[in-house]
Amino acid sequence: MITAHVVGASGYAAAELIRLIDRHPSVALGVLESRSSPGSAVADVFPWLPHVHVAFEESGTVLARLREDDVVFLAGGREQARQLVPAVLAKGARAIDLSDAFRLQQNAGEAVFGFPERYRDRIAGARLVANPGCYVTASLLALVPLGPLAERIANVVIDAKSGITGAGRTPEVRSMFAEVYGDVRAYGLEGHRHGHEIVQEARAVGIDAPIVFSPHVVPLRRGILADVYLVARTPIGREEVLALYHRFYAANPFVTVFHDVRAPHLPALEGTNDAHLAVAEREGIVQVLVALDNLGKGAAGQAVQNMNLMLGLPEELGLDARTHVG
Amino acid sequence: MITAHVVGASGYAAAELIRLIDRHPSVALGVLESRSSPGSAVADVFPWLPHVHVAFEESGTVLARLREDDVVFLAGGREQARQLVPAVLAKGARAIDLSDAFRLQQNAGEAVFGFPERYRDRIAGARLVANPGCYVTASLLALVPLGPLAERIANVVIDAKSGITGAGRTPEVRSMFAEVYGDVRAYGLEGHRHGHEIVQEARAVGIDAPIVFSPHVVPLRRGILADVYLVARTPIGREEVLALYHRFYAANPFVTVFHDVRAPHLPALEGTNDAHLAVAEREGIVQVLVALDNLGKGAAGQAVQNMNLMLGLPEELGLDARTHVG
Amino acid sequence: MITAHVVGASGYAAAELIRLIDRHPSVALGVLESRSSPGSAVADVFPWLPHVHVAFEESGTVLARLREDDVVFLAGGREQARQLVPAVLAKGARAIDLSDAFRLQQNAGEAVFGFPERYRDRIAGARLVANPGCYVTASLLALVPLGPLAERIANVVIDAKSGITGAGRTPEVRSMFAEVYGDVRAYGLEGHRHGHEIVQEARAVGIDAPIVFSPHVVPLRRGILADVYLVARTPIGREEVLALYHRFYAANPFVTVFHDVRAPHLPALEGTNDAHLAVAEREGIVQVLVALDNLGKGAAGQAVQNMNLMLGLPEELGLDARTHVG
Amino acid sequence: MITAHVVGASGYAAAELIRLIDRHPSVALGVLESRSSPGSAVADVFPWLPHVHVAFEESGTVLARLREDDVVFLAGGREQARQLVPAVLAKGARAIDLSDAFRLQQNAGEAVFGFPERYRDRIAGARLVANPGCYVTASLLALVPLGPLAERIANVVIDAKSGITGAGRTPEVRSMFAEVYGDVRAYGLEGHRHGHEIVQEARAVGIDAPIVFSPHVVPLRRGILADVYLVARTPIGREEVLALYHRFYAANPFVTVFHDVRAPHLPALEGTNDAHLAVAEREGIVQVLVALDNLGKGAAGQAVQNMNLMLGLPEELGLDARTHVG
Repeated sequence: MITAHVVGASGYAAAELIRLIDRHPSVALGVLESRSSPGSAVADVFPWLPHVHVAFEESGTVLARLREDDVVFLAGGREQARQLVPAVLAKGARAIDLSDAFRLQQNAGEAVFGFPERYRDRIAGARLVANPGCYVTASLLALVPLGPLAERIANVVIDAKSGITGAGRTPEVRSMFAEVYGDVRAYGLEGHRHGHEIVQEARAVGIDAPIVFSPHVVPLRRGILADVYLVARTPIGREEVLALYHRFYAANPFVTVFHDVRAPHLPALEGTNDAHLAVAEREGIVQVLVALDNLGKGAAGQAVQNMNLMLGLPEELGLDARTHVG
Repeated sequence: MITAHVVGASGYAAAELIRLIDRHPSVALGVLESRSSPGSAVADVFPWLPHVHVAFEESGTVLARLREDDVVFLAGGREQARQLVPAVLAKGARAIDLSDAFRLQQNAGEAVFGFPERYRDRIAGARLVANPGCYVTASLLALVPLGPLAERIANVVIDAKSGITGAGRTPEVRSMFAEVYGDVRAYGLEGHRHGHEIVQEARAVGIDAPIVFSPHVVPLRRGILADVYLVARTPIGREEVLALYHRFYAANPFVTVFHDVRAPHLPALEGTNDAHLAVAEREGIVQVLVALDNLGKGAAGQAVQNMNLMLGLPEELGLDARTHVG
Repeated sequence: MITAHVVGASGYAAAELIRLIDRHPSVALGVLESRSSPGSAVADVFPWLPHVHVAFEESGTVLARLREDDVVFLAGGREQARQLVPAVLAKGARAIDLSDAFRLQQNAGEAVFGFPERYRDRIAGARLVANPGCYVTASLLALVPLGPLAERIANVVIDAKSGITGAGRTPEVRSMFAEVYGDVRAYGLEGHRHGHEIVQEARAVGIDAPIVFSPHVVPLRRGILADVYLVARTPIGREEVLALYHRFYAANPFVTVFHDVRAPHLPALEGTNDAHLAVAEREGIVQVLVALDNLGKGAAGQAVQNMNLMLGLPEELGLDARTHVG
Repeated sequence: MITAHVVGASGYAAAELIRLIDRHPSVALGVLESRSSPGSAVADVFPWLPHVHVAFEESGTVLARLREDDVVFLAGGREQARQLVPAVLAKGARAIDLSDAFRLQQNAGEAVFGFPERYRDRIAGARLVANPGCYVTASLLALVPLGPLAERIANVVIDAKSGITGAGRTPEVRSMFAEVYGDVRAYGLEGHRHGHEIVQEARAVGIDAPIVFSPHVVPLRRGILADVYLVARTPIGREEVLALYHRFYAANPFVTVFHDVRAPHLPALEGTNDAHLAVAEREGIVQVLVALDNLGKGAAGQAVQNMNLMLGLPEELGLDARTHVG
């Protein structure tokens, strides 16, 4: 059994990580470190995890107890990740960072961008993985396989709709029930920082077209639906795009490409590491629908998938979607 | 006092019409005709209208009691509208149809397209108004003022998010609580019939660009947010678009153009005939946000606005937003 | 025109007060004082009030500008109320306090308990009114008319279900969307402070039976449904209770007693100062259903009703339910 | 492997049954019979089960293919159960009926009431189990262990709050999103048929007190919280009740009795067969909180638990809560 520690363990993505590690057959929960709740039991802080009786520990405990073959998940924000990662790596342990500290190439150092559908082999050899978030993952699932069409894409418009857990568990007026309920809210339209990550990875497959990214909060706890619109220079057909997706995702266990454009379904994805894709086309504009759980494939699920790859375990271990509720 | 009758009065838009007419200072509720609930009181069929004790009457009652100066709202679907309108007009009464029976030019006959921000004068002289629905109204509020930029628009992508009342009150699995809750659902991607109306009116102001229209159901009772993306042939600036909007809507009481792109807000619009517009621009793509109440400016509110114009009443009568709840 | 000021004006009840005063025909908005948002416009802090362009002012402004005939609403909590009320009264102005600072007799001083259905006359002559909250108002609407049956009541069980705005707008984990959504949460079962107010007023009409009060948060923005169960010493009939309610509420404009136990309806009450009552009886236990808007009759609406009485204005002025949305 | 068939397989409880059987290690999905959707795949009818590609078959198929050791789940209503059960039993197969056809003793015949916490041994030997529903299960979890206190209980008031899936998947106005959203609705107050089942089983443990049962619909998809109030003849203490629960549920894998009254939590229970209990006491009235998933322990989960017992399998097989999402 490998031991996995979690730093910054009191947010929603951390809770999902704890749930996934707790049921993982080859990995055991190590130290759960939380600045805000040291001494409290997981079941008290996250009442939806009543079976997890481990107590949170205070800052510094992970480093104090870390052993060479351990894995550390960093779920506590950019600054904390920058501080801790060098020490974790120095001890010979592996690190998976859920913040954006190491995602952009100028900051990455030895970090591998944790998008397994593209970087599976590099992730398998990495000591540090920069795990992308929900918006970026959803967008890249649509864009990355389209390299062969890159020159024909004139513009990309990404209109994403996300549940509120993507905004974290720190109390703020904008995350309160009475503010989210009854509303659909566009935000970050002057430049959302995750747009840069989308652009970086799209450029890496040759897509040079301008990319506009528009996130929205919808009244959901979990789930993200991204509509990715491709405006073409020369006509791109739906079947062409579907063929690229089928080829690219053939050996990827978590991505399902549907022929029926009505098939992607958020409730089917809750608690899973799966993603659903479908493609429509009208007026020469291709529309790709991507659905996933923002805490699953968009955060903790993907982090566990990356861990499996780093440890040489089967990629799907502990991530079987048949156990989800729906 | 003018008498206003409602045919097909047991749906959500009809309920909102009844609420608005009931409080209108110059118009009185006439016959409320419902095939499904004759004999029942409004307050029993629509429990959110406990003050309205009028009973629904059976089919045929409106025509039997119709007098020359009355107004008839048709809220019962396309077929019913086609059957009744000639008889209503023959009696010298006015008709406002909420279905799509008369919206497309090939079917319109003498009907005026009921988008007051463009056709105010023609509506004032009309005997029959074809009242557009929520998706079309939201889209046209963004597009119609852009005639002067028409030649520079290469593509239009409309990604709309709507509450479920837009789908009517006929029970279907897709409208059940347990199906809408927890989901964001794209639909009609192979061609939504309201797309034709958007195209017709966009063409009428000179916008010849391909228009892709993607509706989504979000877990809201009321409200629609449309993101209208304009891909430009030659760069279009945010300020240019804002200037056109400010000019076009200067004399329009129900449309507010915000400088702050975060200002459009669905809860502010619930129960009103108002619409909110704002504009963002990135990567040469202009994004227009339009928010309104799908049962207000997107249905019943606009129908009352059209009625006011047809009757020569002040356009805002009975539609003051200060009385809404928020 | 009377001038009404609001202190502690950045919460949900304050927002509803501002909305009601803004549309009140005989009262004008004075100073809106907010410790957290001085300088901001109401429309920016409460985006669902886009028509209110008044700016919040800093602490102390109300007292500085207060004139003899003004009214001050205190919506900022118990401590602030205790500090400000003496100064407000000393200037000859009237005060309506929405906190619980003056509700219990041992703290009341000259304050009149602001439950108009019982204390209308005393409120009319008061300088200071202690406005009860949503749980207390709902419970008392069921209990206060039952004085004539008091000796036959053995036990009272109140099981109340409330929307989250009753918990205020201060960000806390328990009020976040992702915590309230998907849950029904009992709380305060070891003794909710508002239980004492219910007991005080029940005792005042002769009900000496033990009273158990159980509040619950349900995933609603606004609205409260209280089920009040009366266990009888000697059988109490449904008709007896209905008769007492009809008599007691005959001259009360905001309370509707329904014969049909299915009639109380929260969406009908949103934004109104109305309350719905109905009565069931089985196995010798009478069950009274009380529905109201926790921000309306349960807070700001009732405060305006009290203001109307204090000023000698018609009780319903500015509170006509026909203007609500539903 | 045992084969399990489902009749009436197009409702919400049937979907949950299919999900549970599909992942059960010792039982395989047999025929899924649906009058409304023969020929359709499960994944199309229930899009939240995208991994289940079995097609529904038409009426009569189960009986045609039934073998002696099979299990038949009847999820299609009372009439269908009455018709099919004799034929199923005649073939030597076992039947578990989710309707109320066989729950009351006067109709039960050889059926065993499927409440394992009380009738585990009889269920193990049964050919036909009458599986109780969500309200009854929640109420009985509170009441059945209280036999030793029966004489001291004067009155029982059950105030239950349930998600809408308990009302089934047949489209009706009352189950539509726009009707359930924003409301808390009491119903069945003139006598809910499930009240009789609660009374029958309470009487069986000696509780003769009048029982009032008040169901409510709250805006949730899944989950039920029942507040069970016990009015005592002679004082009953919280610790006494807790002690009875701890003893009664000591060997029951799915029931957790919490000391902390705030611990029962609906999101923790979604998709599980677990139930949470807690106890408060004030003014001599004991309040028991029971939380469970109406489709889990309140329907399909309990049906699988009963199946496990009937087949001599470990009671928890296929029902491990660690796999739920939360």
